[in-house]
Amino acid sequence: MLLLHLSDVDEASWAKAFAAALAPYPVVRRGDEFDPAEIRYIFVWKPGADAFAGLTNLKAVLSLGAGVDALMQHPHLPDAPIVRFVDEDLSQRMSDYVVAQVSMHHRLFTRFRADQKARRWDQFYPPSASQTSVGIMGMGVLGQDAAARLRPLGFSLRSWSRTPKRVEGVEGFAGAEQFDAFLAGTDILVNLLPLTPETAGILNMENFSKLRRGGLEGGPVIVNAARGGHQNEADIARALETGILGAASLDVFQTEPLPEDSPLWAIENCYITPHIAAISDEASGVRYFSRILEDHEAGKPLINVVDRKRGY
Amino acid sequence: MLLLHLSDVDEASWAKAFAAALAPYPVVRRGDEFDPAEIRYIFVWKPGADAFAGLTNLKAVLSLGAGVDALMQHPHLPDAPIVRFVDEDLSQRMSDYVVAQVSMHHRLFTRFRADQKARRWDQFYPPSASQTSVGIMGMGVLGQDAAARLRPLGFSLRSWSRTPKRVEGVEGFAGAEQFDAFLAGTDILVNLLPLTPETAGILNMENFSKLRRGGLEGGPVIVNAARGGHQNEADIARALETGILGAASLDVFQTEPLPEDSPLWAIENCYITPHIAAISDEASGVRYFSRILEDHEAGKPLINVVDRKRGY
Repeated sequence: MLLLHLSDVDEASWAKAFAAALAPYPVVRRGDEFDPAEIRYIFVWKPGADAFAGLTNLKAVLSLGAGVDALMQHPHLPDAPIVRFVDEDLSQRMSDYVVAQVSMHHRLFTRFRADQKARRWDQFYPPSASQTSVGIMGMGVLGQDAAARLRPLGFSLRSWSRTPKRVEGVEGFAGAEQFDAFLAGTDILVNLLPLTPETAGILNMENFSKLRRGGLEGGPVIVNAARGGHQNEADIARALETGILGAASLDVFQTEPLPEDSPLWAIENCYITPHIAAISDEASGVRYFSRILEDHEAGKPLINVVDRKRGY
Repeated sequence: MLLLHLSDVDEASWAKAFAAALAPYPVVRRGDEFDPAEIRYIFVWKPGADAFAGLTNLKAVLSLGAGVDALMQHPHLPDAPIVRFVDEDLSQRMSDYVVAQVSMHHRLFTRFRADQKARRWDQFYPPSASQTSVGIMGMGVLGQDAAARLRPLGFSLRSWSRTPKRVEGVEGFAGAEQFDAFLAGTDILVNLLPLTPETAGILNMENFSKLRRGGLEGGPVIVNAARGGHQNEADIARALETGILGAASLDVFQTEPLPEDSPLWAIENCYITPHIAAISDEASGVRYFSRILEDHEAGKPLINVVDRKRGY
């Protein structure tokens, strides 16, 4: 039996889609009558404190959303394997966001928008893509997809990850000892890291000041499409206002929704979107998790299981 | 002997670079002393009325810049073949501009910037790239390069050109009879056409109203990286203000510099850049034309010669 426990999304719609995809396998929701001991799989999104109560025969926790940092903090998280959502459609949308922000900043949007406001015709030629270095932090599924889409555009690419990753056309850096060298050659820093105790707060003033200066007119740029917990927002505001950063594109925030009194809203070279870089699509989610559930019931091993020690 | 006749750029610098590349072949400038009958090649950019006077032994006119529409209007244009600048670096920069504008509009920049101004957290998910249709007008070197870079991003691509062009991954439309069908399936219209009597004013209200509606939230978008003569600016202003167009990115204008009293400057969903999408780089220009000149002197045929009937 599959139990759904979803907040902030249309649970009824997901339940209907799963029931259709898995029939005759039973699918239930929290309010339904069922014996908790019969639940073999639970599909969760922002589960409440009692979400896992009584689930003594759980085979797996299926997590909507690619990031499991919040789920890992759940006070009653069961021992069962956690399966992450690895979603091609989500990767595509995340890369759409990354490409749009990177190419906009490479083309000096902030400068030309200010010129337009001042009705100023000042011909300045942006560098060609090959002259601009994009540094991607995090080379999992999302980081690799972003790199694969930025590469044909001609950008110079480098990456930084916990363990070394070899990706064609990308200069790889790994571990704490190579972090500064990675930053020193980066004009546009893209964050796609998982949120772990090691990566929390990584977008801070100390690291901003290590980015390459002189590569991109106006100063280096950051793009955060991962988690608000990665960023120190007071540092970002100060870096944008003092020119340590030329611009920032932020899709995620320490508190969401971003509070109305956040100074970030009013900073001209801060580009805010309301955590919409990528969403897990219902159709692709149902397809993905139904397949995993059926395969597992047929005796196959689970895929994309979270490593609890790493935290992702 | 090669004569340089360049306005609005650093002619001395080009002359020095050509002299170094072509030595011992003589290179002269307008102010120098020389016998006009000895000039075999002239390299021009915005040539004045007397630029070609006395050049009775001209083998070719070498044109900086990919577009030759202005040159073709010169009252004393000689009969010699005109060689266009076909420049990989220029194609790259032009595509950089196109990709940045297309991806920014696909990600609904105008909507989210308005939300930011209002400190509004309104989660709306942009379509994935495959759900957005980009229509490229003009499938010469620049159009094909833009298509090749937009394709790996996942956009649905279509093209329109004078004669049919078959390009992988691009649905091709050609000629006047297929123009409306091309527009009817286009969310983001990219203009890379040469400016000819047939294409002048093609970006007008009648054509804007034929673009697909409902594909892109906020309305269809135009991107003009070709020539100001392609656009009716009064129509663009009206289309942006009435929602016929959702946004416009314009790098070129009917009059340049764009006059200070143009209404376009102040339209929020009009994104103006001062004709900087792409510039011909001196190093690559010298390399390209030196090679053509030397090859021709050695008896080889000229390449990239303008077809005077077509106008490009």
